[in-house]
Amino acid sequence: MRTLAHPAPASQRTGEAREQREYVTALARGLEVIRAFAGQDEELTLADIAKIVDLPRATVRRSLITLDALGYVEEKGRFFRLAPKVLTLAQAYLSSNLLPRVAHPFVQQVSSGLGESCSVSILHGTEIIYVVRSINKRLSALLGDVGSRRPAYCTSMGRVLLAHLGDRELDAYFAAVELKALTPYTVTDESELRLLLAKIRKQDYCLSDQQTEMDLRTIAVPLRNSTGLVVAAMHVTTQASRTTKRQMIDRLLPALRKAAVEMRGLLV
Amino acid sequence: MRTLAHPAPASQRTGEAREQREYVTALARGLEVIRAFAGQDEELTLADIAKIVDLPRATVRRSLITLDALGYVEEKGRFFRLAPKVLTLAQAYLSSNLLPRVAHPFVQQVSSGLGESCSVSILHGTEIIYVVRSINKRLSALLGDVGSRRPAYCTSMGRVLLAHLGDRELDAYFAAVELKALTPYTVTDESELRLLLAKIRKQDYCLSDQQTEMDLRTIAVPLRNSTGLVVAAMHVTTQASRTTKRQMIDRLLPALRKAAVEMRGLLV
Repeated sequence: MRTLAHPAPASQRTGEAREQREYVTALARGLEVIRAFAGQDEELTLADIAKIVDLPRATVRRSLITLDALGYVEEKGRFFRLAPKVLTLAQAYLSSNLLPRVAHPFVQQVSSGLGESCSVSILHGTEIIYVVRSINKRLSALLGDVGSRRPAYCTSMGRVLLAHLGDRELDAYFAAVELKALTPYTVTDESELRLLLAKIRKQDYCLSDQQTEMDLRTIAVPLRNSTGLVVAAMHVTTQASRTTKRQMIDRLLPALRKAAVEMRGLLV
Repeated sequence: MRTLAHPAPASQRTGEAREQREYVTALARGLEVIRAFAGQDEELTLADIAKIVDLPRATVRRSLITLDALGYVEEKGRFFRLAPKVLTLAQAYLSSNLLPRVAHPFVQQVSSGLGESCSVSILHGTEIIYVVRSINKRLSALLGDVGSRRPAYCTSMGRVLLAHLGDRELDAYFAAVELKALTPYTVTDESELRLLLAKIRKQDYCLSDQQTEMDLRTIAVPLRNSTGLVVAAMHVTTQASRTTKRQMIDRLLPALRKAAVEMRGLLV
């Protein structure tokens, strides 16, 4: 998974003095300011944002002035909020990248065929990022938008992706991640997780039972490209209270596997 | 519409010397590099990007090194492509802003109730930006993602939003926009458009017939906040070949109006 190598900022890399010198701190800070709004109130003051990104107010102010002038942020008195133009950045990814374009119709098909939510995600650092998502009406409306993140170790898609990392990449993952229990059932023991990943790799799917929230069950399969490399994962979510594990394997898994096979020739 | 004031960069404003000095060019350039990928091939070379953003290669290279180090861009040999982390920027907007959170369940409801695609957009400069979108299976899958843009003058949502601009704002709009025919039916005459907008304002909806593409008909209503200000527009799309204008007004418009009324108390 090539994305695992990316999260470290250039300043932490060794032997890349020239790249360090060329690293544009102002750009990095501006992007952090945009991300500071995630999950917060709609409107934040300069002081709020400075606290979230842990930078001096004068620095944050310059970012905000720039983002305001470009239309990414709106100022209203002493409050700032993100403007919808921020969505055009995501659109640049969605309209240029193959994975969301290929996966979108399959996600819709699986979701409407099963009457359950279906998503595709990729591994990024220690987290998965949702790339395509079709939300079933039974679940709350904005739960898990495209672009939202989850820890990899406790989600079925995350486990499928971890199961296909090389040994060194997996060691790096466990060195970087903090394993926390999100429910009483969450597996947080590294050796137990490693055994699970070996099993998932062998059976080529992962059923996750209430590992991230109570009553939530998900089942995921790897998505391979035409050369056989695992490039993403696809899952379907359901509720423990209405779907047994047996039903998930008998009814949901075949639909996921069918979609994964059909997508394989389409992904490079 | 406050967003109309934003697209001009700080450097073009008058009497804002201090803000001009504080404008962070490196941030602006980095965001332009991200947007350069929109609608392009998945992978671009440094030369491709420099050409699209019209900046020297050395400048673009510094942006790419930074974006790569932060995980927003992936480098593969001499090619660059956007990484899914770009989606987390949009997620910051979607998770913090009231409009997408409020509109999402209504868009889903209208869409599933009518069996047609439904969207919400806002006016930004001379364009509308899709903020929420529910796509009906009959239409091609990625047509019009969230964050994608359309010209305002020829779309039903755009016309609804233009119809509620003040006189000075509307004059500024017509001074800035280039009116082009996208189909043989597109109205591109300013005085004809102004008459249409007056009519739309009075009837409080806009039916647009094949103005952006052949066979596409859409009908839109304004979305008002609790103080009565128009903050967004909502539309439903259908095909001229299967839905008459009469049917649109009798069947689609009431569903849109009902949603708009219900949303009114929820938007500030």
